[in-house]
Amino acid sequence: MEVVDAVSVHGNGKAEIEDFDISAVVQPEPLPPILAAENGDKQNGREIVLGKNVHTTCLEVTEPEANDEFTGDKEAYMASVLARYRKNLMERTKYHLGYPYNLDFDYGALGQLQHFSINNLGDPFIESNYGVHSRQFEVGVLDWFARLWEIEKNEYWGYITNCGTEGNLHGILVGREVLPDGVLYASRESHYSVFKAARMYRMDCEKVDCLISGEIDTADFKAKLLANKDKPAIINVNIGTTVKGAVDDLDLVIQTLEESGFSQDRFYIHCDGALFGLMMPFVKRAPKVTFKKPIGSVSVSGHKFVGCPMPCGVQITRMEHIDVLSRNVEYLASRDATIMGSRNGHAPIFLWYTLNRKGYKGFQKEVQKCLRNAHYLKDRLHDAGISAMLNELSSTVVFERPLDEEFVRRWQLACQGNIAHVVVMPSVTIEKLDDFLNELVEKRSTWYRDGGVQPPCIAADVGCENCACALHKLSILS
Amino acid sequence: MEVVDAVSVHGNGKAEIEDFDISAVVQPEPLPPILAAENGDKQNGREIVLGKNVHTTCLEVTEPEANDEFTGDKEAYMASVLARYRKNLMERTKYHLGYPYNLDFDYGALGQLQHFSINNLGDPFIESNYGVHSRQFEVGVLDWFARLWEIEKNEYWGYITNCGTEGNLHGILVGREVLPDGVLYASRESHYSVFKAARMYRMDCEKVDCLISGEIDTADFKAKLLANKDKPAIINVNIGTTVKGAVDDLDLVIQTLEESGFSQDRFYIHCDGALFGLMMPFVKRAPKVTFKKPIGSVSVSGHKFVGCPMPCGVQITRMEHIDVLSRNVEYLASRDATIMGSRNGHAPIFLWYTLNRKGYKGFQKEVQKCLRNAHYLKDRLHDAGISAMLNELSSTVVFERPLDEEFVRRWQLACQGNIAHVVVMPSVTIEKLDDFLNELVEKRSTWYRDGGVQPPCIAADVGCENCACALHKLSILS
Repeated sequence: MEVVDAVSVHGNGKAEIEDFDISAVVQPEPLPPILAAENGDKQNGREIVLGKNVHTTCLEVTEPEANDEFTGDKEAYMASVLARYRKNLMERTKYHLGYPYNLDFDYGALGQLQHFSINNLGDPFIESNYGVHSRQFEVGVLDWFARLWEIEKNEYWGYITNCGTEGNLHGILVGREVLPDGVLYASRESHYSVFKAARMYRMDCEKVDCLISGEIDTADFKAKLLANKDKPAIINVNIGTTVKGAVDDLDLVIQTLEESGFSQDRFYIHCDGALFGLMMPFVKRAPKVTFKKPIGSVSVSGHKFVGCPMPCGVQITRMEHIDVLSRNVEYLASRDATIMGSRNGHAPIFLWYTLNRKGYKGFQKEVQKCLRNAHYLKDRLHDAGISAMLNELSSTVVFERPLDEEFVRRWQLACQGNIAHVVVMPSVTIEKLDDFLNELVEKRSTWYRDGGVQPPCIAADVGCENCACALHKLSILS
Repeated sequence: MEVVDAVSVHGNGKAEIEDFDISAVVQPEPLPPILAAENGDKQNGREIVLGKNVHTTCLEVTEPEANDEFTGDKEAYMASVLARYRKNLMERTKYHLGYPYNLDFDYGALGQLQHFSINNLGDPFIESNYGVHSRQFEVGVLDWFARLWEIEKNEYWGYITNCGTEGNLHGILVGREVLPDGVLYASRESHYSVFKAARMYRMDCEKVDCLISGEIDTADFKAKLLANKDKPAIINVNIGTTVKGAVDDLDLVIQTLEESGFSQDRFYIHCDGALFGLMMPFVKRAPKVTFKKPIGSVSVSGHKFVGCPMPCGVQITRMEHIDVLSRNVEYLASRDATIMGSRNGHAPIFLWYTLNRKGYKGFQKEVQKCLRNAHYLKDRLHDAGISAMLNELSSTVVFERPLDEEFVRRWQLACQGNIAHVVVMPSVTIEKLDDFLNELVEKRSTWYRDGGVQPPCIAADVGCENCACALHKLSILS
């Protein structure tokens, strides 16, 4: 469920956003001017950024001088680069709203472990001869998630991944190995890694339509299932979509499969819970993600709601599927069941540390706070006459895309077409939201001052009832 | 080029090593007894380890008590767990010889960055709106490797991966996208991730035989090429195999392709340089890995010869191939050209830091030291009448597998069948090798004291000239 970095360039001379970011036309660091605009040629924006931008702003690696150790010049240069960089990170961390990362963590106690090359290569449950590992932490974390998703210790298999994408790649691969000629079904608003998997694995893939909320349209799902009913089904269910934070209705997906004549041995469900997989269990009225239902795997990111210095994730599947995977592979190591080989041994310790400190109760409190703050943001946007939508189970507030790219970059918003979003994470406080709102309202009054430019209509994205454009605004106020 | 964690269990009641590790029958931590042996049933060794072992020794995550913050009990418990763990890591780091990891590094200056959630999601050369990234370091590192492998800045594309496996998965995927019906050729001693890729990507795959040295047998390669000459060829070339550190002869591979009638538009070469990709350029008489030859991609691991707290790697390919990849994919983000989505932003800074400090010259010195020390180890093994082999371009010393599993685990050796190996990294000093050799010679005199058990013949693995078994020992001494 990462936000996509993507711009495609069309013939009309304007970079059009295909996925969910405006990245490519944008420079890094304390908000320099937009590069493509500088060149007056957005058509080539992508090429320009690709070819030159980062190459010219990058920090070159230089060969040490013979007397460096004596003069200390290089050491001093590197220290100054790092100090500047740290200051920039602090600044960028402070103004951040658009990505679902909890930036509020303190792993000071774990600094002592940075001296070790910790590597959980291979299977979490089978020790390798490499002794510098952290499997005892990893399995502790996996057990915690197995309890959360209600599967017994001896019935699950899983591992700590490098990111949400690896979880999706793994879940869909397991599905394909269990049902080799299965067709992959995923809603259009699924994370791009799902479609990447289909391509990598050479699977047939059906894109299913979405409701305005971003949820999968089960009527379209049913039609597509019936058109392919000779082949088994592998389904990606979104527990929180990237853009709108929409949660596919797992029960309705299962019901649709049953109604379409798919028995449990003819479908495999992977739940992409990159962000909400960890929040949903703590939302009272949310439908449950549990292995008591006929699902095959669940993945979640560790650097999102939990917070972690580097990306990571958790993948849990049923042991029986992994056995199938292992048995099938004469030339693979019997337990080479992960996507990667060497695996970051620090990530499990970060997760273990936070889970121990916060516990289920701590997460519950944080989830409640995030949902409350998200409602606050949506309400204040509506009060200010700005189009905005918040899905019931979500802390992702979708709203009218700010006109000014500098404002977008300053707050690190993620945008798609005419909409932007803020993902309210534990590090996003009411104070930060107030700062953001006040600035937005103030800037907005200048963008739309003379009435020549109107705020966009985003009813197609958020529904008429949430749209405050000239045409629809009455419905909000009424 | 990770060492494989793998045991397959055969009907003969003995766990047989399929790949290159004895992991599955072994417990972690200060060398407890072997689990399978305890149970007296090696046939089920794998199941036992999988099901129970790590689950019972793991560090459970527990829910905080209501008064934890007041009593400080939990904080104290966690501090004690971490202190014990740290001690264990120091011990395990000290006695380590079998894996190609340089454990000697000091990143103290970078400890300050652990407070930030650094994520280079997406393309290294296209900024995303997420401001807490390290692309300026990443591109600096990539440029360094591009210089090393002789490709111009505007002609290459690459990124910093999570490990050697990701590099292979990427290189082979690029090959498949460029030549969709290509057959994958790789020698039997290629890293297991190469065959994993073939399976994941649903590619036809031909396993090519090896010479005793571990190098690809180009006669067999030619025969297999001719048998499939209607289809393009995607070739994995090993710049250092996992087990024997053998370097496939790139020039001979290219020549074989040409002789078999494959023009450059009908083959794609990926060089798996996980370990030696960074050592080879500094070995005088080594054949050169360079983009001036018709290769498509090169990958190398960052946590091996460079040394890094967590696994990482570098992947470099030609820009033109990435353009093909991007153009082909209507539903992918235009520049979603990596395997993963979110990417660890700390790894590039670790690499940048070390490359800056050591430079090409520093690496050259270290490579020379490693090769010298590897020769020392091989010579002393031969002097002690122990079978051993060292490939000319390699610092991997292959030798007779020690009889005692406890000794193997103590020194964290990686084993396969009757052979074991030590990979001489910069952290492996003469003193450490002497300790190891003295202990081996002493233990060995007890293992083979009464003459009932003989040291194994490993001529099939290392050649008669390197085998010191009863049958072959004369040839060494002569």
